[in-house]
Amino acid sequence: MYINISCAQMEVIPGHPDRNFKRMLEIIKKAREDKANILLFPEMCIPGYLIGDVWEQQAFLDDCAYYAREIAAASGGLCVMFGSVAFERDKLNEDGRVRKYNAAFAAQDGKLLKGYLGRDFIMKNSLPNYREFDDCRYFYSLQKLCYEEGASVKSALKPLELAICGERVKIGLMLCEDGWTKNYHLNVPQTLAANGADILFNLSCSPYALGKNKKRNRLFSKQAKDAGIPLIYCNNVGIQNNGKNVFTYDGCTSVYDGMGKLVTSAGLYDDTLLSVKWDAKKRAIKAECGPAPLPEEPESVYRSLKYGTEKFLAQCGIKKMTLGLSGGIDSAVAAAMYCHILGPENVLLLNLPSEYNSDITKALAEKIAANLSANYAVIPIWESSSHTAAQLSEVPVMGKDGKTFNLKLSGLIMENIQARDRGARIIAAAAAAFGGAFSCNSNKAEIAIGYATFYGDICGVLAIFGDIWKFQVYALGRYLNEKIFRREVIPEEIFNIRPSAELSPEQTVGKGGDPLIYEYHDYLLRAFIENWHKTTSAEILRWYRDGILAEKLGCSEKAFKETFNGPEDFIEDLERWWKLFAGFSVAKRIQAPPVLSITKRAFGYDHREAQLEPYFPRDYAVLKKEILKK
Amino acid sequence: MYINISCAQMEVIPGHPDRNFKRMLEIIKKAREDKANILLFPEMCIPGYLIGDVWEQQAFLDDCAYYAREIAAASGGLCVMFGSVAFERDKLNEDGRVRKYNAAFAAQDGKLLKGYLGRDFIMKNSLPNYREFDDCRYFYSLQKLCYEEGASVKSALKPLELAICGERVKIGLMLCEDGWTKNYHLNVPQTLAANGADILFNLSCSPYALGKNKKRNRLFSKQAKDAGIPLIYCNNVGIQNNGKNVFTYDGCTSVYDGMGKLVTSAGLYDDTLLSVKWDAKKRAIKAECGPAPLPEEPESVYRSLKYGTEKFLAQCGIKKMTLGLSGGIDSAVAAAMYCHILGPENVLLLNLPSEYNSDITKALAEKIAANLSANYAVIPIWESSSHTAAQLSEVPVMGKDGKTFNLKLSGLIMENIQARDRGARIIAAAAAAFGGAFSCNSNKAEIAIGYATFYGDICGVLAIFGDIWKFQVYALGRYLNEKIFRREVIPEEIFNIRPSAELSPEQTVGKGGDPLIYEYHDYLLRAFIENWHKTTSAEILRWYRDGILAEKLGCSEKAFKETFNGPEDFIEDLERWWKLFAGFSVAKRIQAPPVLSITKRAFGYDHREAQLEPYFPRDYAVLKKEILKK
Repeated sequence: MYINISCAQMEVIPGHPDRNFKRMLEIIKKAREDKANILLFPEMCIPGYLIGDVWEQQAFLDDCAYYAREIAAASGGLCVMFGSVAFERDKLNEDGRVRKYNAAFAAQDGKLLKGYLGRDFIMKNSLPNYREFDDCRYFYSLQKLCYEEGASVKSALKPLELAICGERVKIGLMLCEDGWTKNYHLNVPQTLAANGADILFNLSCSPYALGKNKKRNRLFSKQAKDAGIPLIYCNNVGIQNNGKNVFTYDGCTSVYDGMGKLVTSAGLYDDTLLSVKWDAKKRAIKAECGPAPLPEEPESVYRSLKYGTEKFLAQCGIKKMTLGLSGGIDSAVAAAMYCHILGPENVLLLNLPSEYNSDITKALAEKIAANLSANYAVIPIWESSSHTAAQLSEVPVMGKDGKTFNLKLSGLIMENIQARDRGARIIAAAAAAFGGAFSCNSNKAEIAIGYATFYGDICGVLAIFGDIWKFQVYALGRYLNEKIFRREVIPEEIFNIRPSAELSPEQTVGKGGDPLIYEYHDYLLRAFIENWHKTTSAEILRWYRDGILAEKLGCSEKAFKETFNGPEDFIEDLERWWKLFAGFSVAKRIQAPPVLSITKRAFGYDHREAQLEPYFPRDYAVLKKEILKK
Repeated sequence: MYINISCAQMEVIPGHPDRNFKRMLEIIKKAREDKANILLFPEMCIPGYLIGDVWEQQAFLDDCAYYAREIAAASGGLCVMFGSVAFERDKLNEDGRVRKYNAAFAAQDGKLLKGYLGRDFIMKNSLPNYREFDDCRYFYSLQKLCYEEGASVKSALKPLELAICGERVKIGLMLCEDGWTKNYHLNVPQTLAANGADILFNLSCSPYALGKNKKRNRLFSKQAKDAGIPLIYCNNVGIQNNGKNVFTYDGCTSVYDGMGKLVTSAGLYDDTLLSVKWDAKKRAIKAECGPAPLPEEPESVYRSLKYGTEKFLAQCGIKKMTLGLSGGIDSAVAAAMYCHILGPENVLLLNLPSEYNSDITKALAEKIAANLSANYAVIPIWESSSHTAAQLSEVPVMGKDGKTFNLKLSGLIMENIQARDRGARIIAAAAAAFGGAFSCNSNKAEIAIGYATFYGDICGVLAIFGDIWKFQVYALGRYLNEKIFRREVIPEEIFNIRPSAELSPEQTVGKGGDPLIYEYHDYLLRAFIENWHKTTSAEILRWYRDGILAEKLGCSEKAFKETFNGPEDFIEDLERWWKLFAGFSVAKRIQAPPVLSITKRAFGYDHREAQLEPYFPRDYAVLKKEILKK
């Protein structure tokens, strides 16, 4: 006898219990038509998950409770399991606010089933509090509750008993992190299995990250195998953000059998229902289709950036985008992405030349715009930049003693005047007039060291490439040409010229390029932020001394050796970027646009930072001395 | 027999264990000269506390461990107690990174004393994870460790036994939040007392907030009284930040006797040593001076803003500031603050008139600059704004089909062009040329609803007034005139004219003012962010219906009644600001400068936010219908 289980990989709208509730009712109706016996929804599918301190609004909590009751009431003929916030008015969290749980509810035939410790819900035990997660800020864990009530967590983790299709089955229900057992003292799924579960359900609200699905497949497959029973992972789609980071949710709802085999999975980013048939007695689970394919880079980068941008613009009500188009790779690829997402008729590309822009890049910008059939204009900035320089240097400043003086503008100041003239004067106003927003095209390497001008280029509604390195921007550009547009919308030359900001006579394409040599610096900077134990300037010197730097960073030996003229040159370069990474660039990131986040560590709320004076670890000085002596 | 206890209310430099260590050595030397027997340092005085994900750098942790050993080694002839990070390489936190504790170390005569559970330190039990605190993100609690090791927290909380001055004493050592027992399941200080402590030491790294010292005095006085033994609270001074929020640490190190009396306390923001004499047998504690006074508003606002700004600029290496000076209250008070902090010779004030600026405000700006003897210039923006408008509306945009079109600029776009022309074009460049940074003068009410232009006025190095309401800006202005400058540096007229952004013919002083009526909106917006259970649009309507709104908000009945023309007008206004507060203004806050934070809830990392579409709770529609029917 098969029990039909449907998993709702639905798009959750964070902060809108009303809309999520309405959607859930539609899905319940559909599942009933499909003759589902059990219907799973994701974690926090009523409130959404990344909603910041809205968790402190009692009116919001009350609404979530109301909709949870309504969902339970609508469960006639079905068993519905869903994640939401639960709260207890007569108890407090440790912050003194009302006691809240990240909870899963199970309802059957209109009634809520009993959960843990006498409550009508089960609560999450493992509360993630790393990367973008703040579960401990808002929720009380099963472990804390057990401690408080003198109960044992192991005994509390009882599977829910259901009578369904004439059978009695035991469901091991858990929430997201409860399945990621590696570093927690207690293994929730194995405890549920030991306590008699016939099947494991993991309701999740788990953001996408490059490589994460593979890792989860390995882990959850092992959990199912160790427990010897099927495991179903149900995750939502959509986007959610915590201000500084916009995350995509790819769903990837997956079903593993008791041998740990991945039986089926839902397509990435599909708002869909995935159905399986479960024979509880035989411990068997089957599906009509096999697993959906998992794309590799650069397809995975393309898909998550496209989905995230599309959804973010829709949430913000933005239908048109304006971009500065310098003729360089970043803005070219961004332009292609936006044209692909919004249609070229809704994209305005602006080339904003000063006297330092080369004919090469100006011609390339025009060519890209034509290739994409986007709206295009050339608005020179030299008149305005000269006017600003003249105003500032000619206006008399009245000093303290009644004497006047004049301000003096250095070369660097003139460079920043140009960048702000483009971003804040032209692009921001043109975007408003065109009827939409404008894009920040900075990549992760530039953001890592603040190679950007405040209010000049690190501005806009979204940093679409803020979480990918320059090498990934290039790869995405090639992918767009070859697989999406199937023609050379981004001209081949752009992949080959050395990037340059073109802000001075010395710095222009053909003469001077960016100070970043991406073939090496992409990888150096990646180690500072993405490595598990964050790499510091000290480890870099140690690896350099030991001749294993390229290997450790994952860059080519060649790229690295060609970049430097011996140890002094190497160290000078390292200190320059470390000081910026650990110092002034933080100030720029604090005021940067939200980053569309897809790697295992993104700048913003995922990688949290204080403005500090740069610090070199003790070892650094020792290693430097040793290396320079050689 | 008296035991001499010294408390080091030292300035801690976050992220610089080397500098803090050096300073601690100096203090140890001084304490030894003063014949101290016990020397207390604050929590996390080696690494600093708000340092973001630097906690994940192994090299940083290693340095902290090294300096902790060095401090222990330097404790000859003394007992030194200090807070730092402790870690265990062979164990993991739940995030899979090395196991870390927020720990206190005690060393005597060169050796570390034993702490809890066989470690040579004690670990914090109550980990704050609300407001700006993220302790659970980084540290493992005593409770979790006890759970893991099958130990009891109550038994683990054993006072440290010391032989000192020929006596054996038992010290109940705890860290910061361990003393804030109200909402925790276990009361650490009372458990320590029950386990035999003769005295309680609370090592803290506790940021300043308006009203917090009074609350702590009540709480810690009660702890001492309940335990019947003295309690010493040792806190640091300085500033620390987590990116979006800059916090001041006021020290306010305090000593309570066993009756709960506040015996003595150190001055606010003083980098100092506070010494007391303790008779363990008689349970008596005495000091030469009584408690330092606690200032009330507006003095408290003035002192914390001055200290925080001064320290923040010093940390950033900023010696000169540039400010736009509109002739309105916010920039006038900011100008006075910066002149007071940096000296008027280091402040450049810029009046940047368009054709909409009134003669009144232009004259006031000039007067303020003269009163302050600051550097002053007038740089008009009409030429540049017109040039931008002309460029944008005249340049032909090449459309998809080869036809060209022109962009059209609305009145609102023209207003934002002016704001950005001031901020991004003139002030940013002038600040660089003058040799420093520029100030963001936005107040908390403006930031709450995003009444500010991206890259126009919500920009700069620090939002000095970003955590105070307009009424507090006015009060601060009066305080500066009366108590600091002792003359009318801010002209009386500025306190009396209705604020206006002066961006259009309709909006200029004398004709049209800000859409915010601060006498009401300051208090409305305060309820949204600062109320314990965050107030939403639904509660506001309920209070309005019940005739208790002014009372609930704390504003004057008159201010509120004069503002609206009946319920429809009231509701329209409420919806306007709620939509902005819960919606678009978040986008502006994401890209806003750091906020100098002094209230019980500041925008930024203290009040965390996601970009969401505004949500009206279910009750709202019901109440609205009811009110409009009346």
